[in-house]
Amino acid sequence: MQRYFAVDKCNNSFVLADSDLHHICHVMRMKSGDFIEVVFERVLYKCKVDIGANVNILFDSVMDSHDESHSIVLVVPVLKEQKMDLVLQKATELGVSRIIPVVFERCVVKVNDKESRKLDRWNRIVKEASEQCKRISVPIIDNVCSISDLNFSDGVKLVCSTRENSKNIKNMMHNILECAKMYIVVGPEGGLSLDEEQVLNEMGFVSISLGNRIMRVETVPLFVLSILNYEMME
Amino acid sequence: MQRYFAVDKCNNSFVLADSDLHHICHVMRMKSGDFIEVVFERVLYKCKVDIGANVNILFDSVMDSHDESHSIVLVVPVLKEQKMDLVLQKATELGVSRIIPVVFERCVVKVNDKESRKLDRWNRIVKEASEQCKRISVPIIDNVCSISDLNFSDGVKLVCSTRENSKNIKNMMHNILECAKMYIVVGPEGGLSLDEEQVLNEMGFVSISLGNRIMRVETVPLFVLSILNYEMME
Repeated sequence: MQRYFAVDKCNNSFVLADSDLHHICHVMRMKSGDFIEVVFERVLYKCKVDIGANVNILFDSVMDSHDESHSIVLVVPVLKEQKMDLVLQKATELGVSRIIPVVFERCVVKVNDKESRKLDRWNRIVKEASEQCKRISVPIIDNVCSISDLNFSDGVKLVCSTRENSKNIKNMMHNILECAKMYIVVGPEGGLSLDEEQVLNEMGFVSISLGNRIMRVETVPLFVLSILNYEMME
Repeated sequence: MQRYFAVDKCNNSFVLADSDLHHICHVMRMKSGDFIEVVFERVLYKCKVDIGANVNILFDSVMDSHDESHSIVLVVPVLKEQKMDLVLQKATELGVSRIIPVVFERCVVKVNDKESRKLDRWNRIVKEASEQCKRISVPIIDNVCSISDLNFSDGVKLVCSTRENSKNIKNMMHNILECAKMYIVVGPEGGLSLDEEQVLNEMGFVSISLGNRIMRVETVPLFVLSILNYEMME
């Protein structure tokens, strides 16, 4: 069954975005009486499509409501379009809760007045990926920020480092899984500057190594998130 | 130092592909006396560039020669161009030894007389990725084949399954790591047909689940390879 995220609920019907209604009528070519899955406020509903003068999405039954056991916040550099899209899509598939795009010293992409257009695009990507991989929440994407905004008081805080030799993700895993909330910083191409890593360390981020492989920057979040999913597997 | 894979060695000099010589002279704009890394037959050499009427790549010293502790053979469906490129590049970064492209029942991509052009393209991608991530071997890519060709006598053989409930990659890891050679089959979009999975099971491939996440087909190899890298981390 096709899944959509509703923007509102009104009595026994749901409000979907115009683009989703278009998808239902003109891409999926659904008819009155067809069923869809609708997610609203982290609850999954079975709904009936009713197509008349307007398209109505009518409540049928509650299917599921559950939440992730861990909340993973991913801090990523602002990357070139294709790489950023890949990271957003794959991080969504791999269950990330929130994505914070940061401009680091060595970021090649400049952020300017086009930022709101970028954000719209990024939000569309994570929404579509959430529908496709049947999540019941869409990751939140923060506004583009700088390293000094990464001041969090709760959870375990990690920074993927190419300088760290002694602590790797494997021997730190026990500490990582103890916390229900994790923040993971991935640096840009060329890595974090020494200054940046020190600032993060002072803010409580622990530098960890990901082993000996040399990975492209867009591979790193997928690598870390795959491992976390694996370790949380029952 | 820039890394290149040599096609031959002749006394104290190495033979590089024309495209690599072009890269050295016209992209990197190296001069006589500059050093590069050259890999030949899984040994890493430091070499000096000598540019005259011809470009000579002269032996300087041996830098490294080591091999992966495990050999990972990845069996993947033939995918559309962009997804296939992504899988090849990322699988190379994550240390795969050999990639076997297979046409499954539900593959949407047809393979025809363009196969040799596809193979050339794929080989170029894994060579460039190997140079970029500083491997000392380039993954071997087999000719496109069918499921009946996957008859291997050695190693642990796994098929990523959406049907399997009891055995997941985590509780099978102990058995997996016992073998120095592993074969991992990833199915196409829409999954393997029941018939295909049964044929593979009869050939000794054990069906394993990757947990509850719904992943796009191109995410699956990256997920599995990330986990294997993690488990092999010291």
